[in-house]
Amino acid sequence: MTKHSNEELQTIAMSDLAHLKIHGRTTANRTPVTLFWTGSAVELNVQGAELWVEVESAYDHLEPWIRIVINGVPVSRQMLTSGRGWLCIFRGLNPEAVKNVRIIKDVQAMSGDPGCLLQLHAVRTEGVMLPVEEKPYRIEFIGDSITSGEGAIGAKTEEDWVPMWFSALHNYTYMTAEALDAEYRVISQSGWGVLSSWDNNPQGNIPAYYEQVCGLLKGERNEKLGAFEPHDFSSWQPDVIVVNLGSNDDGAFHSPAWTDPVTGQVYKQRLNEDGTYHEADLAKFEQAVERFLATLRTNNPCAQIVWAYGMLGATMLPAIYRAVHGYIKQTGDRLVSIIQLPDTTEEMMGARTHPGELSHRRAAEVLTAYIRKILK
Amino acid sequence: MTKHSNEELQTIAMSDLAHLKIHGRTTANRTPVTLFWTGSAVELNVQGAELWVEVESAYDHLEPWIRIVINGVPVSRQMLTSGRGWLCIFRGLNPEAVKNVRIIKDVQAMSGDPGCLLQLHAVRTEGVMLPVEEKPYRIEFIGDSITSGEGAIGAKTEEDWVPMWFSALHNYTYMTAEALDAEYRVISQSGWGVLSSWDNNPQGNIPAYYEQVCGLLKGERNEKLGAFEPHDFSSWQPDVIVVNLGSNDDGAFHSPAWTDPVTGQVYKQRLNEDGTYHEADLAKFEQAVERFLATLRTNNPCAQIVWAYGMLGATMLPAIYRAVHGYIKQTGDRLVSIIQLPDTTEEMMGARTHPGELSHRRAAEVLTAYIRKILK
Amino acid sequence: MTKHSNEELQTIAMSDLAHLKIHGRTTANRTPVTLFWTGSAVELNVQGAELWVEVESAYDHLEPWIRIVINGVPVSRQMLTSGRGWLCIFRGLNPEAVKNVRIIKDVQAMSGDPGCLLQLHAVRTEGVMLPVEEKPYRIEFIGDSITSGEGAIGAKTEEDWVPMWFSALHNYTYMTAEALDAEYRVISQSGWGVLSSWDNNPQGNIPAYYEQVCGLLKGERNEKLGAFEPHDFSSWQPDVIVVNLGSNDDGAFHSPAWTDPVTGQVYKQRLNEDGTYHEADLAKFEQAVERFLATLRTNNPCAQIVWAYGMLGATMLPAIYRAVHGYIKQTGDRLVSIIQLPDTTEEMMGARTHPGELSHRRAAEVLTAYIRKILK
Amino acid sequence: MTKHSNEELQTIAMSDLAHLKIHGRTTANRTPVTLFWTGSAVELNVQGAELWVEVESAYDHLEPWIRIVINGVPVSRQMLTSGRGWLCIFRGLNPEAVKNVRIIKDVQAMSGDPGCLLQLHAVRTEGVMLPVEEKPYRIEFIGDSITSGEGAIGAKTEEDWVPMWFSALHNYTYMTAEALDAEYRVISQSGWGVLSSWDNNPQGNIPAYYEQVCGLLKGERNEKLGAFEPHDFSSWQPDVIVVNLGSNDDGAFHSPAWTDPVTGQVYKQRLNEDGTYHEADLAKFEQAVERFLATLRTNNPCAQIVWAYGMLGATMLPAIYRAVHGYIKQTGDRLVSIIQLPDTTEEMMGARTHPGELSHRRAAEVLTAYIRKILK
Repeated sequence: MTKHSNEELQTIAMSDLAHLKIHGRTTANRTPVTLFWTGSAVELNVQGAELWVEVESAYDHLEPWIRIVINGVPVSRQMLTSGRGWLCIFRGLNPEAVKNVRIIKDVQAMSGDPGCLLQLHAVRTEGVMLPVEEKPYRIEFIGDSITSGEGAIGAKTEEDWVPMWFSALHNYTYMTAEALDAEYRVISQSGWGVLSSWDNNPQGNIPAYYEQVCGLLKGERNEKLGAFEPHDFSSWQPDVIVVNLGSNDDGAFHSPAWTDPVTGQVYKQRLNEDGTYHEADLAKFEQAVERFLATLRTNNPCAQIVWAYGMLGATMLPAIYRAVHGYIKQTGDRLVSIIQLPDTTEEMMGARTHPGELSHRRAAEVLTAYIRKILK
Repeated sequence: MTKHSNEELQTIAMSDLAHLKIHGRTTANRTPVTLFWTGSAVELNVQGAELWVEVESAYDHLEPWIRIVINGVPVSRQMLTSGRGWLCIFRGLNPEAVKNVRIIKDVQAMSGDPGCLLQLHAVRTEGVMLPVEEKPYRIEFIGDSITSGEGAIGAKTEEDWVPMWFSALHNYTYMTAEALDAEYRVISQSGWGVLSSWDNNPQGNIPAYYEQVCGLLKGERNEKLGAFEPHDFSSWQPDVIVVNLGSNDDGAFHSPAWTDPVTGQVYKQRLNEDGTYHEADLAKFEQAVERFLATLRTNNPCAQIVWAYGMLGATMLPAIYRAVHGYIKQTGDRLVSIIQLPDTTEEMMGARTHPGELSHRRAAEVLTAYIRKILK
Repeated sequence: MTKHSNEELQTIAMSDLAHLKIHGRTTANRTPVTLFWTGSAVELNVQGAELWVEVESAYDHLEPWIRIVINGVPVSRQMLTSGRGWLCIFRGLNPEAVKNVRIIKDVQAMSGDPGCLLQLHAVRTEGVMLPVEEKPYRIEFIGDSITSGEGAIGAKTEEDWVPMWFSALHNYTYMTAEALDAEYRVISQSGWGVLSSWDNNPQGNIPAYYEQVCGLLKGERNEKLGAFEPHDFSSWQPDVIVVNLGSNDDGAFHSPAWTDPVTGQVYKQRLNEDGTYHEADLAKFEQAVERFLATLRTNNPCAQIVWAYGMLGATMLPAIYRAVHGYIKQTGDRLVSIIQLPDTTEEMMGARTHPGELSHRRAAEVLTAYIRKILK
Repeated sequence: MTKHSNEELQTIAMSDLAHLKIHGRTTANRTPVTLFWTGSAVELNVQGAELWVEVESAYDHLEPWIRIVINGVPVSRQMLTSGRGWLCIFRGLNPEAVKNVRIIKDVQAMSGDPGCLLQLHAVRTEGVMLPVEEKPYRIEFIGDSITSGEGAIGAKTEEDWVPMWFSALHNYTYMTAEALDAEYRVISQSGWGVLSSWDNNPQGNIPAYYEQVCGLLKGERNEKLGAFEPHDFSSWQPDVIVVNLGSNDDGAFHSPAWTDPVTGQVYKQRLNEDGTYHEADLAKFEQAVERFLATLRTNNPCAQIVWAYGMLGATMLPAIYRAVHGYIKQTGDRLVSIIQLPDTTEEMMGARTHPGELSHRRAAEVLTAYIRKILK
């Protein structure tokens, strides 16, 4: 369903684009540009009447979705079925006016689908590219399904785990960044935690992959693309890092054990008979939090680190407090703090028993006020 | 960019679909189904895991956009560039669960582009279609750019007259219908009025085309499709007709004369020297209103008719009052009334100096309360 | 319950007060100051630590209530039982800071209680009075129970007609004036209309008393106070007059006839058998509207006159439109217009089936936007 | 300013009143009833037309204020200047209808004014008293100025520490209790903390007085009234205790030392040179928290204890977490938890740089949702 409406359009490879702004961690390769994480995007200031972008989508079962935002307003959201083709971003506009365009990946990096791919090859336009202004702040969000916007779009009755119910924009990350006029990046994965995933799988932990470009992906193609290579932290230093993790670490205590299929080793965060957390296992979580803070600090020497938690209950908060303040005491690092986000009420629930748009909005308000204060 | 992910999908022509619900005036032809008006749609209850729809889009310059609404939540909005192809509506869902799907035309019928076309040929699914429940009420909205949702999406700075800035869903029509749990249809055209369009063109009047399927379109293809045929009013009788016209009739008083290129006849609604409306010309407008009411009543014997006006000023309201009450007096028709909608404030303005989403929402609240009262 | 806490306080008669600002129509007498209408007030800028006011209250059965507003925030609302005594407005404040104080009558002029009286005799303070700044705009509101704030405070279940359920502040008049930074006055009476009261009593019409200070009151004391004297319109000319009348004129059509106890004459606005308004009687109402507009214009040559109607239904709006535009046509007066206010929904209802605070707020928003536009 | 309007009214001493409901801790004495704490109240269901209450007010400098709430709606707020007299609550109402009346103390117990007194001696009415229904839940709130509603009413510019700017109703305590349909009590004092007041005075700590009726008051009269007697916890057991303390304990670290005028002992919570809390001093705070939790549990064996903190910053939260979880670990008490309340933003600030009504409302929403969850 592609047709170039205008003979005068010129095709420009992404790598040849002047003033291309890329949001989100990715590799240096621009032929094509790969978007890995939710909220990652290409941004352009186009002085022209028409703009197309050549996108490539692939997947084994979980397809990419994108959002198109023009002059700050989301105008399109669509599934990208597999294949490579041209997508019209706008047409018929005043050629003299400059349009700010963002094409945003609306779903998380899919650790469960090694075939999932979203790439941008080129644009077609009769216009010219102008510089994209730098934002005054940079924020990195690290989280799980909440931060991936799982269930942030869709009816309350939806229960399927599919990309359609993920949203990068009905999301406290986007809302907070917009409110603070900040550039932002997201590192997130549904079901994952600090120590393990909700089902006790020790590989489902974000810290293990934090220093790679997008290390939680699988498969040869992602390897070739450079997803597993070390991330160059010097290229982008955030002013604030928001960590919204812990919900799945709690889940691990309430889920069956996980057995490593290779080694046969069994993993389980235990509850005591009275339903409280087993102390030794809770300590493992706390140590994981402390280690992660150290990792974050090593790679981001000047960032304010905010552990922001509570949108789906706050049962791990005491342990997080112990861990964060253990870390602070040990290191003297004073740029680390904790903020409890409001719990999601029944009315604010979205799809798949996850926070809906209103819950994300309320969390964003609380978080925005908090960040505004510490950035003063 | 089309690939069928599932070998077991079956293609079913629209004409063969059990339980297809079509919203909006269209012809009887189902091979394919043509959507003419904004807000017109196909609705399905699909019990299945995956659904594709074969769409065809064409235009000389103004392209169609669609919205996809699943279980009451808008999940996608996209431009349809020209061509015929398969669009995936959902995939990977629980095959047992029933999904309510609406594919909605998000832009008005384009009187200015005879090439503009949106058709649905077939669906592909492994599932089955179930009946779509009837709504308790039916509403018909008749209007101009406000009702077409011009400027209801997009930044305030947008000035281009393009389909991208039209919205059927950021729209008081959709909002009112949702709030009242009503089925609805829209007859609307930007720039048009009761007597003439904003630029005094006497052909830019909605009443002249009200009795056709979509008579304000042009061109041979639309003729062949049946757009100009008489509409079968017996097939769908509304409980309420909302007429939101008058803004462009006011515009005609403030715009230059229009000369008929064929006959040379000049048309102009005049102002007096002191800026007031010329009485004879205002009378023409009032007569047009009265005639239109008669037309509406002839074709909709039992409908409550509500003239709802004021979202972009209410300068014609006195004349509308005179006309409506002249009509009531003459006919004894007591099912006609007027409601003034709140004016759009600076803050609620959308793109192209038209009502934004918040203004539409406020109008919908006032209109919903009003209709709820008269339907009791 | 009065005790002067501070030996240094000095008593100053109202008539001796420098910079006393009086809101609302009253007589020239300042020994004491009488407040007649709802929303009428004395306003002071006090540089001092403590302020008392000597108030006098009397009534046969309907007692006065007051509001105290300090620096724009309502801090007190209280019933004034009968007697004369000192009321503490504030104490213990920083003597250097200037406090803006308004003491506002929170209930309407009581045509039904000739004994009802609210007077201010003097103040006691150690401080000094500073000038009260003039507001950029002046608005006069004319209305019935809606404008008197009947039911704007109190539970939905309240049914008693008592002063407690009246509010000058939970009121579209106050809210609109605050939003526009305008000085304002209110002329209003529950149950009254343009032609007659809701029960067909021809004396229950606002226009007959508009040119007096507060002519709708009764009794010798009010006569002596000067309530029935002609109002000096040259002393205060509004920029905008808002007339919110018509609801009780509609009521008269649906209520039994009223017989004049003196003359035996019977008054009744009739309905036709089919429930429509009797034409001749409706014409009487329209003539009354036209006459009232003429009266308003005579006394307020430059004011914008806005008929604002609809908070409890809009059945008289067609007649109002005819009357207003008949008046405009006849006089060429172009500073007269109509705005329909949003109807009160079930949820926004207050006490006594009257608009609650939320309905007043919504009306104020619509009216504020409208006035802002015409004052440009 | 007192006059009995009705000869048939009968005076009934508080002690003789059937169905008198008293809110808030007080002594057993009913001749008269003394209200000590903010939010404390008498509640009556009166079937009658008229109700007066005989109140007595005294003070050296800080006067009492009251709120009158009728059928759930606040209708009056007034300062009570010193003296004893009759206050009319309502008059002229339908004698058959039952009115629920609450007369609420709108200011905190005043530890700084031994002369401050609010008592209710009797009522006058022609009606009868009916039983007051029990609420399903009971909540006790313990806090500082935030919980006392300091600054919750009044302009942002207000800086005076006077009763006028305190509010028991523009207050998260009242709002939370209303939302949960709970009976509630408040124990609070501006400037006080768990370990000391903001200025390091060790006597300014709530726990030391928790087991008395109102032990933080001073003076012989309060002693005679029984304010210092042990509170009878068996008489009223809360389902939930909300502790909102810590803000002034933080203040102590940032304020000069306090010297005991009698012993000469110096008290000071110290900061390290780098601005962090001195560890030994922070430990004192944490021990005070643990001790207070033990005290609360001793006296309230079954209550859910919620430490709710953060409306004016959350700097003590890590220490609170350590203390609360130290207490839990040591005691096995699982009915204790922590909830961080949203910080007050600039826009939500009230008078005296304290949370305004909007901040209280937001805190109440978060707290209500939390309590609803733990009460399930």
